[in-house]
Amino acid sequence: MRLAELSERSGVSTATIKYYLREGLVPPGRQVNATTAEYDDGHLRRLRLVRALIQVGRVPVAKAREVLGHVDDESLGRTIRLGAALWALPQGPEPDEEDPAVPAARAEVDRLLALLDWDAAREVGALSPVHRSLVVAVATLNGLGYGWDAERLAPYAELMHAAARLDLDSLEAQASEAERVETAVAAAVLFEPVLRALHRLAQEEESARRYGIE
Amino acid sequence: MRLAELSERSGVSTATIKYYLREGLVPPGRQVNATTAEYDDGHLRRLRLVRALIQVGRVPVAKAREVLGHVDDESLGRTIRLGAALWALPQGPEPDEEDPAVPAARAEVDRLLALLDWDAAREVGALSPVHRSLVVAVATLNGLGYGWDAERLAPYAELMHAAARLDLDSLEAQASEAERVETAVAAAVLFEPVLRALHRLAQEEESARRYGIE
Repeated sequence: MRLAELSERSGVSTATIKYYLREGLVPPGRQVNATTAEYDDGHLRRLRLVRALIQVGRVPVAKAREVLGHVDDESLGRTIRLGAALWALPQGPEPDEEDPAVPAARAEVDRLLALLDWDAAREVGALSPVHRSLVVAVATLNGLGYGWDAERLAPYAELMHAAARLDLDSLEAQASEAERVETAVAAAVLFEPVLRALHRLAQEEESARRYGIE
Repeated sequence: MRLAELSERSGVSTATIKYYLREGLVPPGRQVNATTAEYDDGHLRRLRLVRALIQVGRVPVAKAREVLGHVDDESLGRTIRLGAALWALPQGPEPDEEDPAVPAARAEVDRLLALLDWDAAREVGALSPVHRSLVVAVATLNGLGYGWDAERLAPYAELMHAAARLDLDSLEAQASEAERVETAVAAAVLFEPVLRALHRLAQEEESARRYGIE
């Protein structure tokens, strides 16, 4: 398809597509003559992902380029390729090592991983930005005096593990490795608000069931 | 306890406590003479919650005052009091009725609630800001071409329902109704980052188990 059709089908203006092409976020089309390039479904998919990252996830352009570089890196194994793409997404604040709640939270997180037999997560440990952001979140909760320890976190972690299994099952239904990594990145950006809203709606439902509506 | 001790035990400066008192976010102490007031554990708890809302949740002062007004309103039944406090928290963007993805998403959400027998959530429907933010999240996902329907959302909704049961079980362990509502509000602000980090860490763990680490 030509640029005009790519624009129409993706809902992204031709000016914005040209900007994404210049920034290297979308690979160039196949040049058919000096002024015309031809685009395919791969470009359409990539535009969708770029919009998810930049317009919905508010990921800065340079970060998006880094994430997409990992998505496209066929030299990596699947776990590393997925991890690299997801780790490149903006994460929360880093642990403040001056804060006494941080080492205590890290000890609880490590105890949690042992309790759950999450051996890969234990091995990767604080190398993973996700591990570090869990430490920050637990330190914030406990620094304010809400006592969350490994035992209290464990049933929630089990539920999130069940969610992760669903995530990977749906990844595996994708045709190509590139689509699998793209789907994972889109899900990380777009699906989190769905999960948060489902959780809050479930709280309302359960509260009404237990205590009535008045 | 006096103001100095309240400051020391809460980790909030006396200047900030005075500001919260002036703004009506923390109830006044019991005046023992013209210049001295006495504070108790209720004040300490309230300060913790105000910090969670304002410093961690970045809730504006006027919004925080509204949330706390519902927390303190003993005339309301438990579901309404919880709901009013949680609904007053900042929510995501409202559905854009001009966007054709919105009515389609709303139809899927309603079909999801029917599928799950979430009758209270169906009854409250779009009156709930949480319902509306779920519609927005699903519309965004599907507007970008990721096809999520009620059947695909349902197993995630069941997991979030299990999480909501854990949430309410721990609420019920609190001594007073005021503490229960306070705990619910703090959890909404402070526990969501924990849940998000647990989900991402579970994805890493499950990916490493399925595909290895290299």
